[in-house]
Amino acid sequence: MAKTHEFPEDRLHFTWAKDPEPVLTIQSEDTVVFKTREVADNQFNKNSTTEDIAGLDWGRVYPLAGPVAVEGAEPGDALEVEIVDLKPGDWGWTAILPGLGLLPEDFPNAYLRTFDLSDGEFIHFNERIKIPITPFLGTMGVSPKDAHGQAIMPPGIFGGNLATRQLTVGTKLYLPVQVSGALFSCGDAHAAQGDGEVCVSALECPMTATLKFRLIKGKRILAPQFLTKGALTPKVNHKGFYGTTGVGPDLMKCAQDAVRAMVDHLSESYGMEAKDAYLLSSLCVDLKISEIVDAGQYVVSAVLPLAVFDEETK
Amino acid sequence: MAKTHEFPEDRLHFTWAKDPEPVLTIQSEDTVVFKTREVADNQFNKNSTTEDIAGLDWGRVYPLAGPVAVEGAEPGDALEVEIVDLKPGDWGWTAILPGLGLLPEDFPNAYLRTFDLSDGEFIHFNERIKIPITPFLGTMGVSPKDAHGQAIMPPGIFGGNLATRQLTVGTKLYLPVQVSGALFSCGDAHAAQGDGEVCVSALECPMTATLKFRLIKGKRILAPQFLTKGALTPKVNHKGFYGTTGVGPDLMKCAQDAVRAMVDHLSESYGMEAKDAYLLSSLCVDLKISEIVDAGQYVVSAVLPLAVFDEETK
Repeated sequence: MAKTHEFPEDRLHFTWAKDPEPVLTIQSEDTVVFKTREVADNQFNKNSTTEDIAGLDWGRVYPLAGPVAVEGAEPGDALEVEIVDLKPGDWGWTAILPGLGLLPEDFPNAYLRTFDLSDGEFIHFNERIKIPITPFLGTMGVSPKDAHGQAIMPPGIFGGNLATRQLTVGTKLYLPVQVSGALFSCGDAHAAQGDGEVCVSALECPMTATLKFRLIKGKRILAPQFLTKGALTPKVNHKGFYGTTGVGPDLMKCAQDAVRAMVDHLSESYGMEAKDAYLLSSLCVDLKISEIVDAGQYVVSAVLPLAVFDEETK
Repeated sequence: MAKTHEFPEDRLHFTWAKDPEPVLTIQSEDTVVFKTREVADNQFNKNSTTEDIAGLDWGRVYPLAGPVAVEGAEPGDALEVEIVDLKPGDWGWTAILPGLGLLPEDFPNAYLRTFDLSDGEFIHFNERIKIPITPFLGTMGVSPKDAHGQAIMPPGIFGGNLATRQLTVGTKLYLPVQVSGALFSCGDAHAAQGDGEVCVSALECPMTATLKFRLIKGKRILAPQFLTKGALTPKVNHKGFYGTTGVGPDLMKCAQDAVRAMVDHLSESYGMEAKDAYLLSSLCVDLKISEIVDAGQYVVSAVLPLAVFDEETK
């Protein structure tokens, strides 16, 4: 009979390895409840400010809960991770971290903001802007083959730091098992993020995550896949969207141009400081590849849900 | 008082120029009704087959209706194009064109299919798959400065072949005016397309398009922008979505990997031939940049609306 396990809160790791000792071993169909720390491992708190970024110990960034071994999992199988429930903590932060993000040259200075999440429904970005809380774990992965002390930040075909906003409650994530036992870990929870995570931070927060695991023998996939339960942006679909574009021969530069135009649009239309417009873009603007086939000139769109400005947003 | 003009059907052009003679001159707030030909300029019809691709005269591809001059438009202004109404013709086609598209090496062979659009609601892809008709003009643009005999296929900051699916009825498109009079043209209509247009064709069709123009003096934008009226995918939001991903250091390869995985998923899960899975992806799968900031490893997702498999799809 399928069991529910509580993962011990104090068992963390900060790098990927191919053969870590499992903290917990489960059967397919079992459920595990994880309590994950925010991505800076409690180096920030509700009262943190921009000044605290300078003192960040990067060795403690990306604390992951895990690994969990799944009995019988072998390379060539897929591990289904059903996101059964996610409960964000009562606060979170987002930041511009110098040298990182999509526009590091435009935004060279550190900037950190913290938010009260205790109403459980919205991130109150400012007096006029409410972003619906739409939580997911930024990092879920199986242990990568051949890994030894591998940094958590870059994701890979094993999953990891996918930062994919569709992995919210109700979604099933499929990961390609790389090593015996799969050795799953997770963390880096987000209360909200747009497709792209453009400023490098989402709304980073602690999370209680209930995940149900199923082993799918012989399902060979080359990279993560997922199945959502419903619409992709249900909390903001009752209003329109504003899009900016970047057009050109390089998808990265297209994305940068689209986000720059969005930052300008937010600054000019809503009187926001550029750094706040960049944070807001990271939290709720979605990057789409509109066109990737036309004679070497591509279009990337950055799309802002106008519902975040809506008094009526439910 | 604002007028409505009928654009003459027989006035076409096949390249962009900076100073074409306007066919029609309008005032801001005027509306123009265009009847555009499918992108191959009537070289295909309802009975066309794959064999007809070989005889395609590429000099006749991208017939655009235009140009329309807007009185008083000057560089530094923006031209708002409100998409008031779009009525697709009663048929359309889509195709794999050798050497083009996101996966030209995977799909080296020509393949053309035509579809009856006369029910006005769905593209009946096969007995099990119905794609909601969600029309837009693949190409809308102002005349590019410095252009002379410039090919229509590549889009640019002047707009043109943006192939951006959000430009459907109710959306307002903003184009940066490049030359005096703006000199707007349009064509290349699509009955449906996913973000990306991965096989290089959308559901190409004739279209009656009603567009309202407003000149916004002094609104300086660097590339097209748009404002949608509502949700981005309202006709398929009642069901879940299946996502595949590509993960790696190159966004183009990530997109290719995500689409390859989607083609495999469609082939394996629904018993489709790969070439049909590729066409279906072009017509309804959306490419998203899920993450573009994590230590040089990016995630592109290809997301399929499951509503296309739904008997109940409205």
